[in-house]
Amino acid sequence: MKKVFATIITIGDELLIGQVIDTNSAWIAQELNKIGVSVKHRIAVGDVYDDIWNALNEESKQADIILITGGLGPTADDITKPLLCDYFGGKMIMHQPTLDYITDLFEKKFKRPMIDRNRKQAEVPDVCTVLKNERGTAPGMLFEKDEKIFIALPGVPHEMKWIMHNEVLNIISQNFKTGFIEHRTLLTAGIGESYLAEMIKDFEEKIQSNIKLAYLPNDGMIRLRLTGFSNDKNKLVETIDTLFSTLKNLVKEYLVVDEDISLEAVIGKLLKERKQTIATAESCTGGYIAHLLTSIPGSSAYYEGSVVSYSYAVKEEVLNVKNITLNTVGAVSEETVCEMVKNVMQLMKTDYAIAVSGIMGPDGGTHEKPVGTAWVAVASKYKIISKKFHFRFDRTRNIQLTATNALNLMRQLIVDNR
Amino acid sequence: MKKVFATIITIGDELLIGQVIDTNSAWIAQELNKIGVSVKHRIAVGDVYDDIWNALNEESKQADIILITGGLGPTADDITKPLLCDYFGGKMIMHQPTLDYITDLFEKKFKRPMIDRNRKQAEVPDVCTVLKNERGTAPGMLFEKDEKIFIALPGVPHEMKWIMHNEVLNIISQNFKTGFIEHRTLLTAGIGESYLAEMIKDFEEKIQSNIKLAYLPNDGMIRLRLTGFSNDKNKLVETIDTLFSTLKNLVKEYLVVDEDISLEAVIGKLLKERKQTIATAESCTGGYIAHLLTSIPGSSAYYEGSVVSYSYAVKEEVLNVKNITLNTVGAVSEETVCEMVKNVMQLMKTDYAIAVSGIMGPDGGTHEKPVGTAWVAVASKYKIISKKFHFRFDRTRNIQLTATNALNLMRQLIVDNR
Repeated sequence: MKKVFATIITIGDELLIGQVIDTNSAWIAQELNKIGVSVKHRIAVGDVYDDIWNALNEESKQADIILITGGLGPTADDITKPLLCDYFGGKMIMHQPTLDYITDLFEKKFKRPMIDRNRKQAEVPDVCTVLKNERGTAPGMLFEKDEKIFIALPGVPHEMKWIMHNEVLNIISQNFKTGFIEHRTLLTAGIGESYLAEMIKDFEEKIQSNIKLAYLPNDGMIRLRLTGFSNDKNKLVETIDTLFSTLKNLVKEYLVVDEDISLEAVIGKLLKERKQTIATAESCTGGYIAHLLTSIPGSSAYYEGSVVSYSYAVKEEVLNVKNITLNTVGAVSEETVCEMVKNVMQLMKTDYAIAVSGIMGPDGGTHEKPVGTAWVAVASKYKIISKKFHFRFDRTRNIQLTATNALNLMRQLIVDNR
Repeated sequence: MKKVFATIITIGDELLIGQVIDTNSAWIAQELNKIGVSVKHRIAVGDVYDDIWNALNEESKQADIILITGGLGPTADDITKPLLCDYFGGKMIMHQPTLDYITDLFEKKFKRPMIDRNRKQAEVPDVCTVLKNERGTAPGMLFEKDEKIFIALPGVPHEMKWIMHNEVLNIISQNFKTGFIEHRTLLTAGIGESYLAEMIKDFEEKIQSNIKLAYLPNDGMIRLRLTGFSNDKNKLVETIDTLFSTLKNLVKEYLVVDEDISLEAVIGKLLKERKQTIATAESCTGGYIAHLLTSIPGSSAYYEGSVVSYSYAVKEEVLNVKNITLNTVGAVSEETVCEMVKNVMQLMKTDYAIAVSGIMGPDGGTHEKPVGTAWVAVASKYKIISKKFHFRFDRTRNIQLTATNALNLMRQLIVDNR
């Protein structure tokens, strides 16, 4: 059985001038991977007829499945549909089921008159199979040529995802005999990439050729991922699981979690298992830690809330940080974060709490407390741990790093508290 | 003067299996655009020798500048450097200034011993110009071939950005005579893409050929962007400014802002001008609105803080929402958000406040209050406006849409309050 390759072509000038970040491609790649399809290329081209045409020619030489997103909207810069019609030698026709669906949508859901532009969304090349889109007015389209399949989807993420899940993935599974791809991922913290590589050098050299090891640094932590490809699923799972156990053991000192999940999800799992609760008190991260914790479905089971105390006044009046503390050692200090963490835990009656206070930049730094200084405190009922960090990056990254490090300190305290 | 084209090649298996989202390309594209370079393609390839080699061949046919990121790290999956050495026919040599810099870094900053792997980071092909990296241990590299330039940068975003700003952009400006690119962007809210297109149809048809109009839908709002290219900067600016005035006037009913800035930045500007302050009380968005507002540098001038009241207890005890309100109409209700908004404004002594409460999913929906239901209230000292929304998407998107719509309601209230 040979590998099945896909290529993802994203269309839109906004991708080439950097006005939007392409999140679609990563999502599509993940989904294709799950059904055993390897993505060979991802390419972004502008709303330019010849560039799109050339990309279709080039990419179809290398891949079995060509997935195209974007350019299917109702406005003049959306040229993908007529181009595909030309490319596959068809002519545009009205697709009645789509028209009925759009008409119904305007009558019953949008409750506004349908204009000619909306009607045109139901026109498709007569050489395609229409893929239903229950999330919007632009249907997906499937074309076949020289044993390759071409799938065109709208660029709006939730519409694209709906069509992928409800139409595309089934079609691909039915049309291609794919091998199996397995991933195993673990997350480490507190060790640099070079040291980690040194630590597992012997292991890495002995890995069999159908399995790859990748280092993925992110937010001051490093993920290690094993990826295997094989036609024999059982054997692959056995091999990769054995390797993964060895790897986990080698890095156990720095291991955060042996799944591909986020730190906030790890904390969520720990708290759920223990039936315990958490609160946060955030100054410099401005609600970002709360946001991360509540991005996890079901977080209301363990997350009580946060006081985002951006000003001195809120620190004093809502969080009861002592005026003398703020006026002597200042808001960015061990004393302040320790008061914050104790008080928020009391205020919200939780088992644990996190507090942070720092200077994220670009302004506000002093000689003693330069931009990037952050104090973090984590607390259980029995213990408070505080730590000072100094990050050297821009505002966005300093906020992310403060949040990640605070969450990791919290995770350690929960684990040690068992 | 002809257009100067660039292509961006990002290298790494993690991009093809969708484990990380590529934010580098968008950033690079923006920076190149500012100096008059158009990005023709963006392509992502895996850590596969032949695929990278082929991408270099293909892309250099189409572009003048080939920018490569990723694969320069110290581990075995980082194959870009030896490959580039082969591609440009060089041999690896030790680059003394880089070695001195890395040695110094380990001695003075990291304060840990340097291992052989770190030392190897200072080896470069003898056919390249080394681009200094003060943010990490992997230097950038510049190669020239057939009047094209090839630039290889590390994939870690803050390292890549540092080298771009301190080395690459100057080199490009010195080596290429670029034309001028100008963008004008405005943001609209409360109107669909088709209607907007209909509204400005006549305008769109009359735009001269060197200027393009793009529609960029995002979070339930639509951005319109005019992009012009010319060798005559003054004339271009004049033309595009005239067009932009006309466009603003055509959409004025739905205009949020006539710059390419975020809604939270708009609110920040308004509050700074008025020397007024704001607080938030968030249930379902879990701190995301606070995070957006505090992501703006200097937001401490107007942002006081937030109570993230995820649980009933915090709503009652910290925000003083009446027990009877919670027990009769529930947390997701007009009454609750109105109490939340009034109380947080009082608690934090601000001029304005935002409060939200909803059910973001995937669980927690009922027949009366299905997943996606969100109540928003915004308040000034004189007025409270509340509104119910019903979003139909996944948790992440429901949170984003709740936040965006709450911020837009707030913006309108501030503007009307003048």
